[in-house]
Amino acid sequence: MGVVVNIEGGRRENASIDAIISLTAQDMGRVNELILSKAGSDVEMIPEVANHLISSGGKRLRPMLTLAAAQMFGYDGDAHVKLATSVEFMHTATLLHDDVVDESDMRRGKRTARMIWGNQASVLVGDFLLGQAFRMMVEVGSLDALDILSNAASVIAEGEVMQLGAAKNLETTEDDYLAVIKAKTAALFSAAAEVGPIVADASKTDRAALRSYGTNLGLAFQMIDDALDYGGNARDLGKNVGDDFREGKVTLPVILSYRRGSAEEREFWKDAIENGRSDDESLERALGLMTKHGAIGYTIARARHFGEIARDALAPLKKTPQKQALLDVIDFCISRVN
Amino acid sequence: MGVVVNIEGGRRENASIDAIISLTAQDMGRVNELILSKAGSDVEMIPEVANHLISSGGKRLRPMLTLAAAQMFGYDGDAHVKLATSVEFMHTATLLHDDVVDESDMRRGKRTARMIWGNQASVLVGDFLLGQAFRMMVEVGSLDALDILSNAASVIAEGEVMQLGAAKNLETTEDDYLAVIKAKTAALFSAAAEVGPIVADASKTDRAALRSYGTNLGLAFQMIDDALDYGGNARDLGKNVGDDFREGKVTLPVILSYRRGSAEEREFWKDAIENGRSDDESLERALGLMTKHGAIGYTIARARHFGEIARDALAPLKKTPQKQALLDVIDFCISRVN
Repeated sequence: MGVVVNIEGGRRENASIDAIISLTAQDMGRVNELILSKAGSDVEMIPEVANHLISSGGKRLRPMLTLAAAQMFGYDGDAHVKLATSVEFMHTATLLHDDVVDESDMRRGKRTARMIWGNQASVLVGDFLLGQAFRMMVEVGSLDALDILSNAASVIAEGEVMQLGAAKNLETTEDDYLAVIKAKTAALFSAAAEVGPIVADASKTDRAALRSYGTNLGLAFQMIDDALDYGGNARDLGKNVGDDFREGKVTLPVILSYRRGSAEEREFWKDAIENGRSDDESLERALGLMTKHGAIGYTIARARHFGEIARDALAPLKKTPQKQALLDVIDFCISRVN
Repeated sequence: MGVVVNIEGGRRENASIDAIISLTAQDMGRVNELILSKAGSDVEMIPEVANHLISSGGKRLRPMLTLAAAQMFGYDGDAHVKLATSVEFMHTATLLHDDVVDESDMRRGKRTARMIWGNQASVLVGDFLLGQAFRMMVEVGSLDALDILSNAASVIAEGEVMQLGAAKNLETTEDDYLAVIKAKTAALFSAAAEVGPIVADASKTDRAALRSYGTNLGLAFQMIDDALDYGGNARDLGKNVGDDFREGKVTLPVILSYRRGSAEEREFWKDAIENGRSDDESLERALGLMTKHGAIGYTIARARHFGEIARDALAPLKKTPQKQALLDVIDFCISRVN
């Protein structure tokens, strides 16, 4: 899992999630069992659809955050396993609905559930998983954790609607973009991290530290994701380079290229993003303009900035293997660009 | 609101929801305020989509059940208003997703949200309302109420998936049908009624009585709805006669007609439901066959049977205006067929 990459700016980092994987391995075993059992139903189609996505090899980063954040404060009960599973179900439900909303064909290198079972099943199984997520949270019985996670559920949906409103709209500003990714991505990272100290009965300061860590890690993660869409290769990505471009998504690399471009370049972007002229030739030109204006590099630099905030959020906490593992996650998320 | 109808069997009833409306009027004023405020968001599209459906004049029967059931046990706090609003939001979220799943054009006599804002917005605003519903429940802070309502959320989605699996399948039995409507409709009626005694700290017996009342009222309600689809008129229904037929839904009137029909009639049903030959001429023949086999009358008789169970569930409870109002609701639901 150790990946040595050369990141712009000349630094070499050994960025890996080996530490968090190993620290949470035992608990993740229980999370994985719970995932399988709670995605079960006598209604055959439910485990079929749910397991298609669940078994498609996501990293399960979010539940690992919950587990490590709980361990960090000495928690040794069961509640963090249930909450970690809830977090992963909320994420899976969002992906099922996202694929319907984006009309996506591929996810993690496999055909999306909606392509196999239809949009209908994807919507409804997503609803089921969300219901199951809430049931597990209720079983845990912490009103504080319920508060954080139910709030995240609303905010995520708000972020997705915001994104829908910003689609194909080149007047979207960097601030608008930040608001969208804060809601649609960072809110769940933040909640995943914060419920750790909550079940461990840690202090308000500790909760705030993990919350801030999660939010800023989530922002960095999404920015790198959006950079990868123009720079990764399809095999690593599990989807195709330029998917966002073809869907007319106005992500940071596009926002920067559009704002920094000439009048003629802005016409090109309007044609491509707003009018949907997003064939391979257009994609090639888009990539060229992004290089010209350093848009990918700047997106990564912005991500690195939020990564630093996440790092600083944890700084006052005492040195533990979990703290180091969470810091490694920041580097790993940023170093995914290669 | 008083409707005098002639129900098969020769009885005349004065079935009305006037009593529950009047008993809950003040609380419903607060529910309606809360609905507007919690459907609000800085993301403009959210209140637009949400209010389109919210303001379309549903009866708001489910939240009235919660309010009356709480009042019945002397509750005089705020929690029942929040839970009633949560229940209505869960219902609204389900309708938004249902219309996407069923590809419906009309709902309550208006174009569906998905026809105006698209499937994407309907899915996401539904998710938002579900998140808001959970936030309100968490604010109330009753783990028992959270347990009941989060369980209902899972079960409703399970029921919808079951229904999807049964679509266009004439081998669906009356038992299968019952399992579907118990999950997709009765679960929320049941939860709506049960959280009343929960917030009022009533006894387990009282909770069980209201739960059983809600379940059986929900079953009766859905059966009448399915009968109305073949017998009502479009203006009262807010949708068109035969919508279920055209969508290939295998509801009780179809199940009964198919099972009681001749081999030649069964061929007709296969052609209509499974192969989608559901033009006006087919609908006319379907209605004729339903009359021939008494399928609508029997569906109403079955509904009446569950209505009786609902009535018996409340029988041991002491006489209060709320109890009488809840009994009236049973008659009202059944007498909607005219």
